[in-house]
Amino acid sequence: MIRVTVWNEFRHEKSHEAVRAVYPKGMHEAIADGLRKDSGLKVRTATLDQPEHGLTKEVLAETDVLTWWGHMAHGEVQDEIAARVQQRVLEGMGLIVLHSGHMSKPFMRLMGTSCLLRWREADESERLWVVSPTHPIVAGLGPYIDMPAEEMYGEHFDIPAPDDLIFVSWFEGGDVFRSGCSWSRGLGKVFYFRPGHETYPTYHNPEIIKVIDNAVHWAAFAGNNSVAPFYGANTKPLQTIVPKKH
Amino acid sequence: MIRVTVWNEFRHEKSHEAVRAVYPKGMHEAIADGLRKDSGLKVRTATLDQPEHGLTKEVLAETDVLTWWGHMAHGEVQDEIAARVQQRVLEGMGLIVLHSGHMSKPFMRLMGTSCLLRWREADESERLWVVSPTHPIVAGLGPYIDMPAEEMYGEHFDIPAPDDLIFVSWFEGGDVFRSGCSWSRGLGKVFYFRPGHETYPTYHNPEIIKVIDNAVHWAAFAGNNSVAPFYGANTKPLQTIVPKKH
Amino acid sequence: MIRVTVWNEFRHEKSHEAVRAVYPKGMHEAIADGLRKDSGLKVRTATLDQPEHGLTKEVLAETDVLTWWGHMAHGEVQDEIAARVQQRVLEGMGLIVLHSGHMSKPFMRLMGTSCLLRWREADESERLWVVSPTHPIVAGLGPYIDMPAEEMYGEHFDIPAPDDLIFVSWFEGGDVFRSGCSWSRGLGKVFYFRPGHETYPTYHNPEIIKVIDNAVHWAAFAGNNSVAPFYGANTKPLQTIVPKKH
Amino acid sequence: MIRVTVWNEFRHEKSHEAVRAVYPKGMHEAIADGLRKDSGLKVRTATLDQPEHGLTKEVLAETDVLTWWGHMAHGEVQDEIAARVQQRVLEGMGLIVLHSGHMSKPFMRLMGTSCLLRWREADESERLWVVSPTHPIVAGLGPYIDMPAEEMYGEHFDIPAPDDLIFVSWFEGGDVFRSGCSWSRGLGKVFYFRPGHETYPTYHNPEIIKVIDNAVHWAAFAGNNSVAPFYGANTKPLQTIVPKKH
Repeated sequence: MIRVTVWNEFRHEKSHEAVRAVYPKGMHEAIADGLRKDSGLKVRTATLDQPEHGLTKEVLAETDVLTWWGHMAHGEVQDEIAARVQQRVLEGMGLIVLHSGHMSKPFMRLMGTSCLLRWREADESERLWVVSPTHPIVAGLGPYIDMPAEEMYGEHFDIPAPDDLIFVSWFEGGDVFRSGCSWSRGLGKVFYFRPGHETYPTYHNPEIIKVIDNAVHWAAFAGNNSVAPFYGANTKPLQTIVPKKH
Repeated sequence: MIRVTVWNEFRHEKSHEAVRAVYPKGMHEAIADGLRKDSGLKVRTATLDQPEHGLTKEVLAETDVLTWWGHMAHGEVQDEIAARVQQRVLEGMGLIVLHSGHMSKPFMRLMGTSCLLRWREADESERLWVVSPTHPIVAGLGPYIDMPAEEMYGEHFDIPAPDDLIFVSWFEGGDVFRSGCSWSRGLGKVFYFRPGHETYPTYHNPEIIKVIDNAVHWAAFAGNNSVAPFYGANTKPLQTIVPKKH
Repeated sequence: MIRVTVWNEFRHEKSHEAVRAVYPKGMHEAIADGLRKDSGLKVRTATLDQPEHGLTKEVLAETDVLTWWGHMAHGEVQDEIAARVQQRVLEGMGLIVLHSGHMSKPFMRLMGTSCLLRWREADESERLWVVSPTHPIVAGLGPYIDMPAEEMYGEHFDIPAPDDLIFVSWFEGGDVFRSGCSWSRGLGKVFYFRPGHETYPTYHNPEIIKVIDNAVHWAAFAGNNSVAPFYGANTKPLQTIVPKKH
Repeated sequence: MIRVTVWNEFRHEKSHEAVRAVYPKGMHEAIADGLRKDSGLKVRTATLDQPEHGLTKEVLAETDVLTWWGHMAHGEVQDEIAARVQQRVLEGMGLIVLHSGHMSKPFMRLMGTSCLLRWREADESERLWVVSPTHPIVAGLGPYIDMPAEEMYGEHFDIPAPDDLIFVSWFEGGDVFRSGCSWSRGLGKVFYFRPGHETYPTYHNPEIIKVIDNAVHWAAFAGNNSVAPFYGANTKPLQTIVPKKH
């Protein structure tokens, strides 16, 4: 059972009628509802305005994979909590960063770059092409996902070269974007997934939920955490070291 | 249930008493016995001197992951069958190449390089360090694997830069080696794993079997094969293309 | 002075009036003329119908970087000469593969994959976005290159994940393509660059020539060839190896 | 002419007699002296105890490549100046991080990970193997560099997977280390190079200086900075976007 925490800034839904119309309970509930159809997941939600943004040490300790949607209030996320999320990723928690989360504090801290990009709100169609067909994140999809209308995000996207480039988006207006990218950071895995502008029903789209669900399974820790206790420790040599004459 | 075919050249065991002493039934049976303890695998073996090297189209079609050990008779592998293995990898079969298999025809065809390396038979100790702790291939191991004695393989190893570098070996005599490397090729995944000189009981070592078992699970196809039918096909545009004036 | 050999199949220009109209002396002469404006390069050409396809051992030995355009006659390239080109790349020659050269024998041998892709001849516009701005191949360009009309190449492009992904193309009809990709193979560097359908004046475009010129400078050997003599050689240990008790 | 600033914490040399004996003018002067033999470089130095650590906006604006050695006083580097260095890297300045600089604030900010490692002071020999022979950073070297005595750094080194892995170190006591690693971050290039413990004459070693000199040439900006003004900007579509019906 993978324990998932779906985090949402949850502000647009309160202040913008058009957003509330699409996501009456908030984007987090749409995403969580989608993931709850997978009986292998145990899903809860957390939002910015909860105490400690809903991300207490206890919650994070019990979270295998965290998904993150934020936009208008990135600056209100406390630095201490952003650092806490970063630290949990380094310890092995998976992190799935959605859409405008590219400028969130945890993602920026993990990437080390500006994470800036070009964008345009023009109600244009997007097609996400699979370019890494062996990756488990694309299991069960066709060769691409069509979004009838979305916000445009365009290159150059200022991120470290991804360990795996999984999707590349085409936009009606003439732009492309590396829209599905994965990285390892410490013992944790990070996946960035582009779609999800708040005025579109993106998180009601079964293909988008499928990708996030696949990503949860991929990002849940399945590696080797025996290396962790060695961090910074001194260590006994395997064999006798011959003293040098200086 | 993952269907594994363990392939072995099976010549050293017939011609060298010292090898037969370690692997009386052949290295393939030692590896297969190790993998058979995993109830999620269905394991069979195949060897060079069988018709079509035991790798008929039917066998390959029913193989999810193929492991390969060869050395003294690389040249006797028929080109047609090497090409068949390569093609099956591109279609999604996993391939785990062991030790001296670095110069096997299927591996060299998939890599495109000379796959040469430096080597030394000096009965020296090897330590395989985990350098990619998020990778599922290293699950359940400690921070390294110690081999009390092995043949040395040293850099430069002439391979394409691996998609993931998973193990780096230290050798007593002063050498290092990228001893666990993975790549995607087409719809297939390839893992090269260094240890396994025929005169040492390497494939009786539970940690080595653990790595191969992990690699089988990792290499079994779990991606998206919907892209395959598009290979080479013409394709209908998503939107109207405006004719150009030349 | 970098010695460049521009190779062209040189068949479409002879058999198709429309192609000859665009490239009266052949595509190779258009590319070579473009590169000759760079006084740091010494440029010659070679074509399929010359003896040994113009790629004798002597020519290759004197070639620092080879560019390759082929299409309708890939099958007529002799296997021996394809292997010779591959071997020279492994020894340090740069290789720049253009457009339909993605199915050429030397490129396929170096990649190990099918190199298949989707395509469409629909006279559509292409925009090549720079996604790796630190790479010297994109020096002197803007954020993208616009091609008013080209053949479409679309994903999935069955290549090994590039070491560096440099350009991603957008096509009018709804497709994207990894149109500038680089790899190291042995001591050699390989760059694939997508544009160049024979019926368009692509190689008269100064931006396209700029990319090829940059790629020549990048691909010319500038590394360390001292590793080469070690290939396959036995090697003396750095320190005394303690004999093991078996 | 590439403008290099050699930065040094410059504390060990003041407080430890053994270090002063090796580097009477400080490690920065040893490195700078080495680089000054390259007439293509214009070299200056800067140290922690200077105003703004010697890294004013003016100095950084006039710096093409910055080298960084720090250890006992990482915590005294002001956050504002660490952020300034990070920002200059994203704008295109090269950064070469030496030895214990792996825990420096600028490097950690650019990596996003803990950058922890295992270490041992045991006066042991190190051998740095070239594993990426096409890389310009290894030009002019042999297949490895031998250091008769150095501090040991061992895996796991908690860094993002490098874009290029260039050196792997062997240590007498049984450890390996990814000792030459490169990454791109924004428009800047970063190279980490392991050797350089303060009690050894590492920066008097011509091979070590050769690597740093090569790295300076590699890290100096040679890419495409036209993408920068697009960061965050809105952008006009290439073609008419068809309004969607919701």
